[in-house]
Amino acid sequence: MKINQNYLDLKESYLFSLVAKKVREYKEQHPEREIIRLGIGDVTLPLVPVVVEAMQRAVLEMGVRETFRGYGEEQGYAFLRQAVCGYYAQKGVQLSDSEVFISDGAKSDLGNILDIFSTDNTVLIPDPVYPVYVDTNIMAGRKIIYVNGTAENGFLPLPDETIKPDIIYLCSPNNPTGAVYNSAQLESWVAYALEHEAVILFDSAYEAFVQDQSLPTSIYQIPGAKECAIEFCSLSKTAGFTGVRCGYTVVPHELVRNQTAINKLWLRRQTTKFNGVSYIVQRGAEAVFSAEGLKQIRANIAYYLENARLIAETLKDLGFWVVGGENSPYIWLKCPDGMNSWQFFDYLLAKAGIVGTPGAGFGANGEGFFRLSAFGDRNDVLEALARLRSL
Amino acid sequence: MKINQNYLDLKESYLFSLVAKKVREYKEQHPEREIIRLGIGDVTLPLVPVVVEAMQRAVLEMGVRETFRGYGEEQGYAFLRQAVCGYYAQKGVQLSDSEVFISDGAKSDLGNILDIFSTDNTVLIPDPVYPVYVDTNIMAGRKIIYVNGTAENGFLPLPDETIKPDIIYLCSPNNPTGAVYNSAQLESWVAYALEHEAVILFDSAYEAFVQDQSLPTSIYQIPGAKECAIEFCSLSKTAGFTGVRCGYTVVPHELVRNQTAINKLWLRRQTTKFNGVSYIVQRGAEAVFSAEGLKQIRANIAYYLENARLIAETLKDLGFWVVGGENSPYIWLKCPDGMNSWQFFDYLLAKAGIVGTPGAGFGANGEGFFRLSAFGDRNDVLEALARLRSL
Repeated sequence: MKINQNYLDLKESYLFSLVAKKVREYKEQHPEREIIRLGIGDVTLPLVPVVVEAMQRAVLEMGVRETFRGYGEEQGYAFLRQAVCGYYAQKGVQLSDSEVFISDGAKSDLGNILDIFSTDNTVLIPDPVYPVYVDTNIMAGRKIIYVNGTAENGFLPLPDETIKPDIIYLCSPNNPTGAVYNSAQLESWVAYALEHEAVILFDSAYEAFVQDQSLPTSIYQIPGAKECAIEFCSLSKTAGFTGVRCGYTVVPHELVRNQTAINKLWLRRQTTKFNGVSYIVQRGAEAVFSAEGLKQIRANIAYYLENARLIAETLKDLGFWVVGGENSPYIWLKCPDGMNSWQFFDYLLAKAGIVGTPGAGFGANGEGFFRLSAFGDRNDVLEALARLRSL
Repeated sequence: MKINQNYLDLKESYLFSLVAKKVREYKEQHPEREIIRLGIGDVTLPLVPVVVEAMQRAVLEMGVRETFRGYGEEQGYAFLRQAVCGYYAQKGVQLSDSEVFISDGAKSDLGNILDIFSTDNTVLIPDPVYPVYVDTNIMAGRKIIYVNGTAENGFLPLPDETIKPDIIYLCSPNNPTGAVYNSAQLESWVAYALEHEAVILFDSAYEAFVQDQSLPTSIYQIPGAKECAIEFCSLSKTAGFTGVRCGYTVVPHELVRNQTAINKLWLRRQTTKFNGVSYIVQRGAEAVFSAEGLKQIRANIAYYLENARLIAETLKDLGFWVVGGENSPYIWLKCPDGMNSWQFFDYLLAKAGIVGTPGAGFGANGEGFFRLSAFGDRNDVLEALARLRSL
């Protein structure tokens, strides 16, 4: 039996384990010091009441013969796919419920979607980036070309006409930088994808954080996108579902390559290698999209965004170069005094007891930059900012 | 962008859609006739009380800040992996919890495991078979060789020394035939796999139905299996989790190929392309493995097994050739009077209003055979058997 040798080309990710090790060592040396974590990309507010109530009802239904549910459709229950369509309609995007696939999270589908594409495709990935885009393509042995996110382009790279890509990854609002593409920028990406008959894999996991009404929250708000883009979204950050696990993937019927409907290929993949998301979880997700659900989750998002605003404002006051933090839970800053990412990590931990994430962990262009996240408790954020000011 | 052309080699599965169409037509013509479905492989009894209670508690925890849980480990919470180890210990199998991976069901992992193996491997699959084994390998373009399940070998094919396989699928108790390998038979498969340095993918989704203490319920009860086998199991049939979604995959540390620990490769796959199973679901699964949980689910399994016994006994009384139905929820019968699978399907529907599953849908060797399942209501089963006797 031969293993998939491409796996041996993967780099070990030491990012979060090295962060954990350094924090552990610091704590051993300074047991009295309270450490504030602004590094994690995980939510901290509990599920909103409508979601809890919906899942409570669903659990009870499953314990009664008359309302028990066995296998559901692999692509998700119609009630949830229709709720997602309703959410998109509020953005001015019309979808059929057969274009929506319920997932156990964007990470799963971002990885699994590659199943339906040939390994003989050239992949274009912005750097810095969510490491999953890179690793899943290395696993399949695809050729990867990077486009550079830099301070000069505000970490929003645009199409490079010297590259002829087949698969293009975009993430907006971006993880790790918090930068958000405007409509004109996304239009140039859609035009580029159509020109090269490429497919855009659009990760909109942070769309619910966009407050500026002029900024797109779905690639399908751009004309032509349905002919060239698949969109991945998640309730992880939208509704605190990181531990509940639910997301959705949109594959428009207009998306056709090699005379083949990509929607049909993805349906075949999912019906063969997936058995759908828990009924209980899908009822919780449905509740998110109710009028009351949207109201409740938006209150949580406003809380995180206020954290982000406070962090970004303080950093700017202190003279840091910063992107993100306005329509995103992430703040991306340039390390001061020519420090590299890990030097600034050590400095911030030693001098202020603050844990962030070194930008170098997200790609070569992340070196010299640093990510802070707004998912913490308000009091912790305020204390962290006071420590920063007194540095 | 080039699609994965292997997808175009997949055959459309018309099995269940054709069954549904024929039933629909029959109903239109005979609106007064009550149809009894003995075809579906889905459970009908609700979740047991301990599972409902555990999930109720977990949902409430997620609604409170102090007990809310965000991202868990991709391979599952330690509490559940340890519970699975405890379950295996009762079978005399010692596992470390780092050998257990919690999944959203056996189907997902049976498909996804192939990611870590080269496409340049020869796959050996028994026929008739759960169609997922075949389709997932066609998607990757692997060479497939079949071994024949027949009435002569009781649908329990043994190793074929003329074939040199790299990947071997085994399912015991079998879907669709209900046949169960004994220890000597599994020993010959393990010896064969070790000889060829192959890997056995052992699907034990129906292990909880085995009542005969002399029959193995895990491949790891066979000496040497840890060096050559991965085991996939599910709570779908064990505890009625078809709509809840939880299973587990065991990858022993002893399993090494190309000087590479397969456990490490699978962990890398899962941490990159999966984000774990819902916390709520994992708490429900943990409850299954408690003393009270095992007692409650075994009562449900006993109910289904009594259905299976009644069906198999009646069929034998009526002179049918039958396997399964003793340590399995499936009964596999030879169609009478030289009928093929679909002829018998039509006959049974027209004459008795009973819906079963044509064996031809599970592979070439299924032609002329037929699957009945024991997951229905007792009264429906008794009524179906009365109709069969009066035919």
